[in-house]
Amino acid sequence: MADAEGTGGVDLGGTKIQTVVLRDGEVVGSARVPTPQTGAADDVIDAIAGTIHAALEQAALEPPDLRAVGVGTPGEIDSAAGVVSLAANVPGFADRVELGPMLSKSLNGIPVTIDNDVRVGVLGEFKRGAGRPYRNLFGVWVGSGVGGGLVLDGELYDGRGAAGEIGHAVVVPDGRLCSCGRRGCLEAYAGRVRMEERARELHRSGKKTILFKVMKERNSARLSSGVFASALKKGDKMAAQLIDEAASALGFALASAQNVLDLEAIMVGGGLGDRLGQPFVDQIADQMAPHLFTPDKPPRMLTTELRDLSGAVGAAVRAGG
Amino acid sequence: MADAEGTGGVDLGGTKIQTVVLRDGEVVGSARVPTPQTGAADDVIDAIAGTIHAALEQAALEPPDLRAVGVGTPGEIDSAAGVVSLAANVPGFADRVELGPMLSKSLNGIPVTIDNDVRVGVLGEFKRGAGRPYRNLFGVWVGSGVGGGLVLDGELYDGRGAAGEIGHAVVVPDGRLCSCGRRGCLEAYAGRVRMEERARELHRSGKKTILFKVMKERNSARLSSGVFASALKKGDKMAAQLIDEAASALGFALASAQNVLDLEAIMVGGGLGDRLGQPFVDQIADQMAPHLFTPDKPPRMLTTELRDLSGAVGAAVRAGG
Repeated sequence: MADAEGTGGVDLGGTKIQTVVLRDGEVVGSARVPTPQTGAADDVIDAIAGTIHAALEQAALEPPDLRAVGVGTPGEIDSAAGVVSLAANVPGFADRVELGPMLSKSLNGIPVTIDNDVRVGVLGEFKRGAGRPYRNLFGVWVGSGVGGGLVLDGELYDGRGAAGEIGHAVVVPDGRLCSCGRRGCLEAYAGRVRMEERARELHRSGKKTILFKVMKERNSARLSSGVFASALKKGDKMAAQLIDEAASALGFALASAQNVLDLEAIMVGGGLGDRLGQPFVDQIADQMAPHLFTPDKPPRMLTTELRDLSGAVGAAVRAGG
Repeated sequence: MADAEGTGGVDLGGTKIQTVVLRDGEVVGSARVPTPQTGAADDVIDAIAGTIHAALEQAALEPPDLRAVGVGTPGEIDSAAGVVSLAANVPGFADRVELGPMLSKSLNGIPVTIDNDVRVGVLGEFKRGAGRPYRNLFGVWVGSGVGGGLVLDGELYDGRGAAGEIGHAVVVPDGRLCSCGRRGCLEAYAGRVRMEERARELHRSGKKTILFKVMKERNSARLSSGVFASALKKGDKMAAQLIDEAASALGFALASAQNVLDLEAIMVGGGLGDRLGQPFVDQIADQMAPHLFTPDKPPRMLTTELRDLSGAVGAAVRAGG
């Protein structure tokens, strides 16, 4: 039996499971499968174990070579118990799931660490990606919702467990309704789900757009990040308007965070952030500028480096990889 | 000659100099004088040295018993060089002053540490006052302006040197003009100087108030924190309205900070904060509540414990006391 030498990292999402194996800090294997939609948590956990075996094989490692596994997941997390609750987007995870113990069991007792998906994504970029040169960094993940993770004085900062939730910073008093039930939150303007709802409203009211045509061409049931990016590239005005509104809301919320935290860098990631890339990040920077207390010393504005591997790599880092 | 055993702390302001001497973490002497208004920095430094000697005497200590002195000051600070610039409110300090070296010289070479006035105030409360039970804390100092200091994971957090500047978080897009030249900043609503300007505007436009009558009765040339507190107590509607607006702006800005930082506690200090006390803090908490991401887990809302000694005590702590 070889010495243990790899660490697994899993990014668990509602539509896909992305897994990597790290060895000496490098990605030596990866695997990605659609998240099982049967509604049974067991099926999701089996699929996770399957990706780990596939990634190990790619890395020419054996299961006994695996030291530990980290999982980044949405929902409420009890890290000590390895329990996830209220991860409504993951089939079978709406209620309480003993993800850590169950996955550990199916992996012959290997230790499993559970943490927030966005926070591990930011950790991945901080330790192994675009965040390496900085000690104070805010990673904002713009996807279906808007989340974030803070690195302060070189450490991931958790607060009482919910730090980084910039998605629910208020950008417009009494503004657009958010999925959380409050009004005017950043996520109501910059989260893909609410952007899609807004596009449907505008479309119903007679506004022209190719967004839904692009969606059908891509066989998608929703306005994914890729649909928004493609329609924007093709010059669609509604896509441009919705993305402008998102950038403006992000710029406003991030300027306030910057004024309080005096960060070295802000990184924009997540599905929409990664798809729209540097032009979107530059747009956000332009919207921040007029609100900055030290406009001559703006933070560096970054895209991610590991892109859709940030979460899986960060989960492995969290587990000691 | 006795062993060195006291540490001095100085809170330098535009109208007063407050000094303490700490021994084993306790205030054993204090002295307070008006800030010399001659316009010469030398006179201010002589006055500081005078308060230190007075505080030592009160503590039955001799100058050789003094280990070090810390000074909290407004303006831009180069801590390494002990230099203060642009402290426009302190007579003689509008340009560059070598405060550290000059004060050290007049105290027989004792080491002098210089830091931001608000940040040392928060440090004082964190180490010796109402902040002791917490590891993650935001101290918001509401005075002529609005400043703040962050304690994160048990350490004062500086960012790149300007962290905590919540006074310039935007609370109303394109709102009231701020002293910094931008619009809609928190300080434009909750800073005493801008509140006074707003009261004068309203008064000129015919709105009734006893604010200026109270000001004259107190022989004050400005609407000090005490004037606002007194008029509010006497049922003045304009004072109540201005304080409502301040609490609302503070609640809004602090809710966004809370959503990002997930703090254990928020403390309201500074001249106006200390004068208005717990009712004002409760009002701010009420204004925060609807915007909190975790409304069932609001931060503890605190007043200061050391009150107008926070800054001097914190400056001594910063110097090792």
